[in-house]
Amino acid sequence: MRSPRPWRKIIYDVIDNEKDIYTRIFDAFMMGLITLNVVAIVLSSYQSLYNTYKAEFELFEKVSVIIFTIEIILRVLVAEYHYNEKRTFRAVARYLVSFGFIIDFLAILPFYLPMLISIDLRFLRMLRLLRMIRLFKITRYSESVRSLGDAISERKDELLLTAFLGLMMLFLSGTLMYFVEHEAQPEAFPDVLSSLWWAVATLTTVGYGDVYPITPFGKFIAGAIAFLGVGLVALPTGILSSAFMESLAKKKARQMQKEQEAIFGQQCTCPNCGEKIMLEETPEFSQN
Amino acid sequence: MRSPRPWRKIIYDVIDNEKDIYTRIFDAFMMGLITLNVVAIVLSSYQSLYNTYKAEFELFEKVSVIIFTIEIILRVLVAEYHYNEKRTFRAVARYLVSFGFIIDFLAILPFYLPMLISIDLRFLRMLRLLRMIRLFKITRYSESVRSLGDAISERKDELLLTAFLGLMMLFLSGTLMYFVEHEAQPEAFPDVLSSLWWAVATLTTVGYGDVYPITPFGKFIAGAIAFLGVGLVALPTGILSSAFMESLAKKKARQMQKEQEAIFGQQCTCPNCGEKIMLEETPEFSQN
Amino acid sequence: MRSPRPWRKIIYDVIDNEKDIYTRIFDAFMMGLITLNVVAIVLSSYQSLYNTYKAEFELFEKVSVIIFTIEIILRVLVAEYHYNEKRTFRAVARYLVSFGFIIDFLAILPFYLPMLISIDLRFLRMLRLLRMIRLFKITRYSESVRSLGDAISERKDELLLTAFLGLMMLFLSGTLMYFVEHEAQPEAFPDVLSSLWWAVATLTTVGYGDVYPITPFGKFIAGAIAFLGVGLVALPTGILSSAFMESLAKKKARQMQKEQEAIFGQQCTCPNCGEKIMLEETPEFSQN
Amino acid sequence: MRSPRPWRKIIYDVIDNEKDIYTRIFDAFMMGLITLNVVAIVLSSYQSLYNTYKAEFELFEKVSVIIFTIEIILRVLVAEYHYNEKRTFRAVARYLVSFGFIIDFLAILPFYLPMLISIDLRFLRMLRLLRMIRLFKITRYSESVRSLGDAISERKDELLLTAFLGLMMLFLSGTLMYFVEHEAQPEAFPDVLSSLWWAVATLTTVGYGDVYPITPFGKFIAGAIAFLGVGLVALPTGILSSAFMESLAKKKARQMQKEQEAIFGQQCTCPNCGEKIMLEETPEFSQN
Repeated sequence: MRSPRPWRKIIYDVIDNEKDIYTRIFDAFMMGLITLNVVAIVLSSYQSLYNTYKAEFELFEKVSVIIFTIEIILRVLVAEYHYNEKRTFRAVARYLVSFGFIIDFLAILPFYLPMLISIDLRFLRMLRLLRMIRLFKITRYSESVRSLGDAISERKDELLLTAFLGLMMLFLSGTLMYFVEHEAQPEAFPDVLSSLWWAVATLTTVGYGDVYPITPFGKFIAGAIAFLGVGLVALPTGILSSAFMESLAKKKARQMQKEQEAIFGQQCTCPNCGEKIMLEETPEFSQN
Repeated sequence: MRSPRPWRKIIYDVIDNEKDIYTRIFDAFMMGLITLNVVAIVLSSYQSLYNTYKAEFELFEKVSVIIFTIEIILRVLVAEYHYNEKRTFRAVARYLVSFGFIIDFLAILPFYLPMLISIDLRFLRMLRLLRMIRLFKITRYSESVRSLGDAISERKDELLLTAFLGLMMLFLSGTLMYFVEHEAQPEAFPDVLSSLWWAVATLTTVGYGDVYPITPFGKFIAGAIAFLGVGLVALPTGILSSAFMESLAKKKARQMQKEQEAIFGQQCTCPNCGEKIMLEETPEFSQN
Repeated sequence: MRSPRPWRKIIYDVIDNEKDIYTRIFDAFMMGLITLNVVAIVLSSYQSLYNTYKAEFELFEKVSVIIFTIEIILRVLVAEYHYNEKRTFRAVARYLVSFGFIIDFLAILPFYLPMLISIDLRFLRMLRLLRMIRLFKITRYSESVRSLGDAISERKDELLLTAFLGLMMLFLSGTLMYFVEHEAQPEAFPDVLSSLWWAVATLTTVGYGDVYPITPFGKFIAGAIAFLGVGLVALPTGILSSAFMESLAKKKARQMQKEQEAIFGQQCTCPNCGEKIMLEETPEFSQN
Repeated sequence: MRSPRPWRKIIYDVIDNEKDIYTRIFDAFMMGLITLNVVAIVLSSYQSLYNTYKAEFELFEKVSVIIFTIEIILRVLVAEYHYNEKRTFRAVARYLVSFGFIIDFLAILPFYLPMLISIDLRFLRMLRLLRMIRLFKITRYSESVRSLGDAISERKDELLLTAFLGLMMLFLSGTLMYFVEHEAQPEAFPDVLSSLWWAVATLTTVGYGDVYPITPFGKFIAGAIAFLGVGLVALPTGILSSAFMESLAKKKARQMQKEQEAIFGQQCTCPNCGEKIMLEETPEFSQN
């Protein structure tokens, strides 16, 4: 006879046990609530709509934040089971530094913050956007996310380097263009930081067209920078391509290893003397 | 002595039997008709031309739709042969849910719809565009389409995830920029949905330049988003590169497997005792 | 004692024999002349410069065309040696349909054409641009051009299909946007062909910003098309990536094949009985 | 008993010995100084800020250049140790043609130049930008830079060819568009060099939108060029993808070679006679 599940284990099964049907229902409910919050943010940006249904928007926000807060409290309570950790303190500590908690906490922060400190209203409204980052949690369980994330994290160094090179090119291009175009267009290139705006639009090949060089030398420099921008787009693409290929090849290599082990583990007949022999040494052919 | 072909089999040979010369002629005729329909749509957009030749345009449309309708009816009749299915009912059902039928049906729908229900004329004109989707049927028989489609469908999950990440970034960018720029440019960023228009132009690096941030903070955020947009372009490219590589490697592996089987099936001389032996066990070297 | 070289062989050695020093000098001279022609075209676009030095520009053009014409005549004379073909007639015929001849002929055509038929002066000026296509001959001897060309021609089918898909998307997008935006902006989207201009700027992510949708529905459609445009950029990139990888792998496979043949062709000592044996059957390990 | 280190060896250990802690501190200090110089350039572009703190900016520049000059002198003194070269003259000569020296020298040049020759003040200000190229030295020690650089330098030929093809397409597109659009928009396409500005914005898919064709034929040509521009972006990306894949495969092949050598060096049991034999000849399976 099994002893009854402790109440915290019951909560764990409901909100965090992937195999449990209740967890799936709970996840679906939370994802629906997150989506509704995003819809509410979009709708409340329409001034007339917001003025008419102000009370409803605020009620919905309050209810949402309360549910999100309860979710966090429950996750603290079941951290022990989630991390399969004996000591409650360590489990809670691990939860409190986890990616999931930080996102959840930032999402409810803008609601509680004005209760603690006085805060600029406009800044607060922007903080509310943090609720949207909960969207990222929707992708949590996907297999593809993992393989995508693996590919990216394996080439983290190269990608970071590309980003750094991009930033350096940005600064050099922006500063150069400031010196070249400042006198011809003092209002378009008033200082170096402003001409960085031109540089970012050019290097990413977005090209809004609100600012562009007008002197022949400026156009020559801009053309060269635009060509470099193409290279800047090509670098991360090439890195990611090879990363995807590599993660694929690894999966294949693991599979092949297993197949070969199956072959070499079998008995086989010596073609010379007809004896049954067992291949002892498993040769390694792991390539790629 | 062969019994005479049933009349439905004759129709099948004419319209749907890839090996038959009549089918090729029929296909060429239908492709020509589809192309002419597209030309007619383009030409009828010139108001003066349309007014002069209104009767001719309408006649051509009527004739085309009648031919397309007859094609559908014929394809229903020969479904049995196409799907190699004994029960007529099942064969027709399979045709009616096939990709080809849905395209063909949507292409003639705008002609018959106003006979059944009263419909807004402007909306109807837009529906006529559906005739253009028949263009997609032109690519039906190509070998390359299959290999392209294989590569894409094999990485469907990763590509869908990229699309989802793109949409999420779109919403986050658009909402963020709304809060940052709304006060400075209420006419450019009037609500969240409108600022999504800016976000899509930036993330896809199109950059029309009709809307762009003007505050320093907005420009900073926009620059960061533009850089993320480069990554968003790099992701599907990398995924597709590796998908093409993989489908190529698979083709190679199949070829190699055949070659090895040919080798190991041959008799060979044992280097030890000089006997002719037949290799029984085909070792597996399938790599990649 | 060798018989004296025939005079056509001497010309061949001077203008078309890669190993000959004279050919290198001749090539360098022709490339210089082509470059000077391009410079002349660029400079003659400056109206004031052209008016001042009109005689010099025209003289230079005349001299260039005469030299280019002589080159063609000489190449006809040495076609026999170039194609290593006994029958003079066949050799000349092969030269006259070669890529090199067509480029050379088109480059001098605009000079001789007005002598034969009366021609619109403005159209003639545009034809003179054909002289610039001689630039493509500069890349003739490069190793990289060959490997680049191999990679592209191997995936010709997929790339053509991508181009065809792109054109189809272009037509569908342009026509759709015409119906959506024509009434709101009759001057920006006056007919289907004009709205193709918007579609091409969007699908290639160029985004000039001279034409863009202003209705909410039009913006929604445009956003979707811009995302598809990113895919349209990703497809050829992925195809080319895998093509470059494949041509590389082939080069490696050829190298490896040679190495293995060298190994298996050697005598080796049987580890069992100490006899020298010759491996007769060369096993195939050609992978990738 | 070791003889005391010569004073130049001491300096070498402090500024150029990667294993020495003093070198790390020295590098960190120099990087900080370079970053501060960049910040100073950015800040001094704000006219009001520059006018207020003119003396401070000039003092900081003087101090920086003096430190940079001392660094160069020190590096000349320790060249002998850096290049592990007996003859001092050769070591100094090698340093003076090294990439590092040229960057460092160009960075201090704008300060000393006006002392030697009279120079246009505006040109001088632009020269000061050269201080920023010192930023490139920050990436010196990174592992990723090396692997990135290896991938790029291995495909140098193909990438240069792509750049050359891009330049050729640029010239052809620009000249063509000049002839097509010059009469319709003489102010937008005044001469060939000006229409190159349009061509570069289109081929790199930046698309500022300050210049664009307005005639139907011009738009048709521009659309075709924009599609070619997509290919121009796809080419270097594909080349870099395969380069990254190749450098990865090489790393793997080296690793595999080592593993196989370890295997084949081991004793193994002959399946025929049961004797322990040592494989003498290491078969080559080096693939990919």
